[in-house]
Amino acid sequence: MPFDTPLMQRLDLTHPIIQAPMAGGGDTPALVAAVCEAGGIGFIGGAYSTPAQIAELSEAVRSRTNRSFGINLFAPFSPPPMPDDPGPALDRVAPYFAELGMVPPEPPAPPEDVFEAQLAVALESGAAVFSFTSGIPPVHAVEAIKQRGMLLMATATTVDEAVALERAGCEAIVTQGVEAAGHRATFAGPFEAGLIGTMALVPQVVDAVSVPVIASGGIMDGRGVAAALALGADAVQMGTAFLTCDEAGIPDAYKTAVIEAHENDTNLTRAFSGRPSRGIANRFMTEVGATDDILPFPHQNALTKPLRAEAAKQGRAEFLSLWAGQGTRLARRQPAAELVERLADEAKTAAKRLRR
Amino acid sequence: MPFDTPLMQRLDLTHPIIQAPMAGGGDTPALVAAVCEAGGIGFIGGAYSTPAQIAELSEAVRSRTNRSFGINLFAPFSPPPMPDDPGPALDRVAPYFAELGMVPPEPPAPPEDVFEAQLAVALESGAAVFSFTSGIPPVHAVEAIKQRGMLLMATATTVDEAVALERAGCEAIVTQGVEAAGHRATFAGPFEAGLIGTMALVPQVVDAVSVPVIASGGIMDGRGVAAALALGADAVQMGTAFLTCDEAGIPDAYKTAVIEAHENDTNLTRAFSGRPSRGIANRFMTEVGATDDILPFPHQNALTKPLRAEAAKQGRAEFLSLWAGQGTRLARRQPAAELVERLADEAKTAAKRLRR
Repeated sequence: MPFDTPLMQRLDLTHPIIQAPMAGGGDTPALVAAVCEAGGIGFIGGAYSTPAQIAELSEAVRSRTNRSFGINLFAPFSPPPMPDDPGPALDRVAPYFAELGMVPPEPPAPPEDVFEAQLAVALESGAAVFSFTSGIPPVHAVEAIKQRGMLLMATATTVDEAVALERAGCEAIVTQGVEAAGHRATFAGPFEAGLIGTMALVPQVVDAVSVPVIASGGIMDGRGVAAALALGADAVQMGTAFLTCDEAGIPDAYKTAVIEAHENDTNLTRAFSGRPSRGIANRFMTEVGATDDILPFPHQNALTKPLRAEAAKQGRAEFLSLWAGQGTRLARRQPAAELVERLADEAKTAAKRLRR
Repeated sequence: MPFDTPLMQRLDLTHPIIQAPMAGGGDTPALVAAVCEAGGIGFIGGAYSTPAQIAELSEAVRSRTNRSFGINLFAPFSPPPMPDDPGPALDRVAPYFAELGMVPPEPPAPPEDVFEAQLAVALESGAAVFSFTSGIPPVHAVEAIKQRGMLLMATATTVDEAVALERAGCEAIVTQGVEAAGHRATFAGPFEAGLIGTMALVPQVVDAVSVPVIASGGIMDGRGVAAALALGADAVQMGTAFLTCDEAGIPDAYKTAVIEAHENDTNLTRAFSGRPSRGIANRFMTEVGATDDILPFPHQNALTKPLRAEAAKQGRAEFLSLWAGQGTRLARRQPAAELVERLADEAKTAAKRLRR
């Protein structure tokens, strides 16, 4: 076996490969189970799911594999109040609703506080790993997770965040480099202070914590897997590479956009959700992102949700949130099992380059 | 020997380590020669030097080592005209001049076009490698460099830039990741479209060109060296790691700032030179960077030059351009030879991690 790290042993992994939770439909039970069966570990991104959906997704994964899988939630947070006048944000997106033949947007309903209910179901999901993004998990969650023997992971974008998560009881730290797709997970300070490249972030976090580190951000093939392990990581977490797998549940127009994107086609934007997130620049991102008519998270996310759903139906990529990282030239369409095998082979080859 | 790449063979390097050109005083002849003697290759950053200074620096390097060294220039460019009213930019920095007891700033003189004279001297410098940043070297320079048997290198921040440089005759490509210290070298499009993390940029460039690739940005120790080679690079180019070496010619206040900086203490700023550049955030960067009262490059650079020189004398780091990358927690004070040896040892250890 070419790679063998403490985290791999703990989770009985053949390959140091974690499929990133991608709340929003990418990580279907078929994808999660395929990654697990191939010797990596797949994650259910439950953050946007109801407790009933989380139960259903977990059951669907368990029915497909006996291997370990993971579940992810956002750390709980208090949403900011809706602005006194959400009118400008509604007016800003109304023409796009009209363009798709939809009724005009309504002010989004106040978000429900579902964390405790999500947590309760996730604790009974049968997952072997429980991960959090965008914050420190609360004490009662940490205790309940450990009581069940689940491995507790969380995401850091800076060294200070990694140290805070270790202190809170996290047993592995995922580093989110600036290259990464999707929402910035920065929770200690403004997101601009957490935009560190994976090459710099991983070794500095490895030096600062004593738990295993999992590298994410910009890793798209086996060369990246080997590089992350050379930096001191115990495994990698990859999202974009799995998005274009056959089992991923995103619209085909989204997969096509990822396959065709160049490394410099992504930007960070608040336009879709109100929270900075990396995706492929498209019409919605460019036009709405150029304005300040954007509600704070999660209100903007709720506001644009029907638009994104309809755009998916109509195959209109210009209105989809095309979350993707900076390595898109390396994206390929294939079954997930084939991707995991290819990653393992490429990583072996890359490691051999260092043995000459 | 643990590492052996085509570029190392071509340049007769013991280690795949290039000390980055750091026009502005960091790369003294003592530093350049020490890196060469230790089995890497040092670079003279000649961009801000007069032809006479370039001749003097080269002579000083040659007197210290018989090994190969490199020389770097900016690709020639047409400076934009001075704005009709430079007054706001002068007024903006005047209080800092006063605070250091200096006479008020004067409108900077129009920049001299010294490229051809620099090129002529650099061609006779005895350097084995000639590198360019911030553009494509002109045809006559490419021809003259190759005629002398010098290896021609240039810096790319995107795949398209790398391809354009290879087409122009460059024999090795330095990738500048977003983590990197100093000026963004982006030349094809706005700098915002060239902010790719090293982890994502290197393999995508390796796939797109057939010449050797040298990784730069965020690499601070031997783990980074091994990681870059795993990504497909033939060598690494490191700036910040060499800045705190004993031989580096920067003010001690600057070295201290680098040693003490955290990974998220840097920002991109136009405040010092008019061109986006990564450095440790300090008072000047924060206060001037918050305004639009900044002349275009190279005029702002000329405007702030006397201030930076006086601040260096007085040990006032808050007025220095503290160029540094995102890996500063890994910076150490040591002689350059010791750093090169440490990098080689650490890289060997990191490579061994992949052999288990």
